[in-house]
Amino acid sequence: MEATYDADEHTVRATGDARQRFYDSRGYGRPRGDGLELAPVEAAHLLHRGDLEAVVANGRELGFREFLALTGVVLGFVVYKDLRDRGFYLSPADRSPPAAGDDGSDAGADSVSDDAGDVDFVVYPRGSGPWDDEVQHRVRVVGERESVPADGLGDVVLAVVDEDGDLTYFEMAKRPPTGSLDRDPPSELSGTLLANRVLVWDPPEALYETQFYGQRLYGRNADAGPLQLSLLEAAALARQGALTVTAADGSPTDGVDSLVARGRAVEGERFDRRLDAYTALRDAGGVPKSGFKFGADFRVYESFTSVSELSHSDSLVRVVTADHTFFPRDLSLDVRLAGGVRKRMVFALTDANDGVDWLSVARLTP
Amino acid sequence: MEATYDADEHTVRATGDARQRFYDSRGYGRPRGDGLELAPVEAAHLLHRGDLEAVVANGRELGFREFLALTGVVLGFVVYKDLRDRGFYLSPADRSPPAAGDDGSDAGADSVSDDAGDVDFVVYPRGSGPWDDEVQHRVRVVGERESVPADGLGDVVLAVVDEDGDLTYFEMAKRPPTGSLDRDPPSELSGTLLANRVLVWDPPEALYETQFYGQRLYGRNADAGPLQLSLLEAAALARQGALTVTAADGSPTDGVDSLVARGRAVEGERFDRRLDAYTALRDAGGVPKSGFKFGADFRVYESFTSVSELSHSDSLVRVVTADHTFFPRDLSLDVRLAGGVRKRMVFALTDANDGVDWLSVARLTP
Repeated sequence: MEATYDADEHTVRATGDARQRFYDSRGYGRPRGDGLELAPVEAAHLLHRGDLEAVVANGRELGFREFLALTGVVLGFVVYKDLRDRGFYLSPADRSPPAAGDDGSDAGADSVSDDAGDVDFVVYPRGSGPWDDEVQHRVRVVGERESVPADGLGDVVLAVVDEDGDLTYFEMAKRPPTGSLDRDPPSELSGTLLANRVLVWDPPEALYETQFYGQRLYGRNADAGPLQLSLLEAAALARQGALTVTAADGSPTDGVDSLVARGRAVEGERFDRRLDAYTALRDAGGVPKSGFKFGADFRVYESFTSVSELSHSDSLVRVVTADHTFFPRDLSLDVRLAGGVRKRMVFALTDANDGVDWLSVARLTP
Repeated sequence: MEATYDADEHTVRATGDARQRFYDSRGYGRPRGDGLELAPVEAAHLLHRGDLEAVVANGRELGFREFLALTGVVLGFVVYKDLRDRGFYLSPADRSPPAAGDDGSDAGADSVSDDAGDVDFVVYPRGSGPWDDEVQHRVRVVGERESVPADGLGDVVLAVVDEDGDLTYFEMAKRPPTGSLDRDPPSELSGTLLANRVLVWDPPEALYETQFYGQRLYGRNADAGPLQLSLLEAAALARQGALTVTAADGSPTDGVDSLVARGRAVEGERFDRRLDAYTALRDAGGVPKSGFKFGADFRVYESFTSVSELSHSDSLVRVVTADHTFFPRDLSLDVRLAGGVRKRMVFALTDANDGVDWLSVARLTP
């Protein structure tokens, strides 16, 4: 068998019994005519295993080390090897074989690309391979310090190679919010705008107890007394016409507009985005409360009956812009924390008033 | 007893038996002559309890609600009440009584100030009060969306009032790094600079096993083979003269300079700051490795003997600029995660080459 590297096509072409030995029995490469085309990362893996002794490039015989130095596919190799070690067959995505019976098509570009929506590897279910039709994961490889635009992320697994060369997998999926609360909040409420909250001095019991708006001014253990509403809660209630807000001196305010203005004064347009996400979460029947203790915008109770029967919240929501860019390390922080408290980590992508896209991210052990 | 609000001095003056009832027996206010001066937040607390029936301002008698609206000390009240509920006596910081026997001094400014290095409350040990000399906590009150300059933070507790009005306390302390590793790393190493790592093809066993530099190229479970060093590890070793680095094509590089240039290309000056912190951690005998899985710069093993006897790491380090500004929510995220995995959260403040200040932050339940 001979294996030759074609630098222009970023491809290794192997002849002889390569197709039988590597593709038919172990899912490497893609058949072309009598031979086999291997992506650099596949050839590197075969070299590392000793299944290939050398790859010829520019008339020289390269071993694993020289081949890796020549092609530079270090990140890709680390991920490819890890998934092989875990018992998966996988193909570089733009080289994944076409449907059965169709052998020919264009040779792909470099297997590990940094284009936004790209997938680097197609991973088949354990026991399956490129000759089957089923796909288990679409994997995108990123370095710890690369940024990943949120736009276009959906049904994909991010494989992050960290600074030390360790791997973390994040499974991303679109997932709209849900919830079980279907009662309308009390109406005809009135409150006073003080600092960054609205104080409701004589709230109806239902506002807190069965709707979970606000927090007792006299602390968590108080079972009565004034409620402090956050600006978001107050703005959402005011927008529904359920709440009238006066200023500290008792004079009337412009309601929603005054609340939004107060919110923007502190955090700019972020307030609008958060109000957008808050409203969508409430509309879906969820109960969003401050996610501060988890470093998020909201914690959300999806199956809420009353405050006295409160169980743990189900998800953490971070609100970001629609054109948000993820940094793998920030993602790792959010997802690790959420996992540690058994909540789902959800990103709300919104530019406010344009609707919200929901992206849920979880750590995956393939 | 009569209590009168002086708006210019932000002070309530109470006469009659106020000193006896409020100061002597329960640590409110500070004696002035025969009477008692109360900060607005103290007067609000007394009004809320019904211990004061009203405060006179501009000839009108105000109850709790009107007094809170007039003075706006909502955040301060929430924190003051919480600490009182937990069994502490406390004084607004700039009003804390002087040493015993000295009753007079200037009246303070507003009790909850937003100056950088400010402390809002001085909290006495349980069972003690303003008439004693001991201080348990110096507390600074901040809203969830305020920023807190790192400069000047040290022996202070941040009390963060979140959007919902819930409270979280963070204890901050200066704490230089420590560690038990006192061996020098192997020298006369050579490696190849590939992508963002340096591959050492035939590493001495000690480099990984007893010094924990690098990661096996063949994955975590490999017990031999090439090591991949991070750029930080390689730069630190090269700076000690222990490592020579060649380019992918085998040509020589400029050593440290080439590595630092490669690091800067990806993350700018942040690389220098991280190298600074990495070096200081190693110098102190700690073993810093990537903190990626925890969303931090480093996880640090402070009592390290060998990789095969590795226990859990002790702290997580995030590297920030010397003029860094904390956002309470980010702080909450870091500290919560670290707490969940039982590690200390440490911030390394550095501008590179100017030394490093170390600030450790933990959640506190007073």
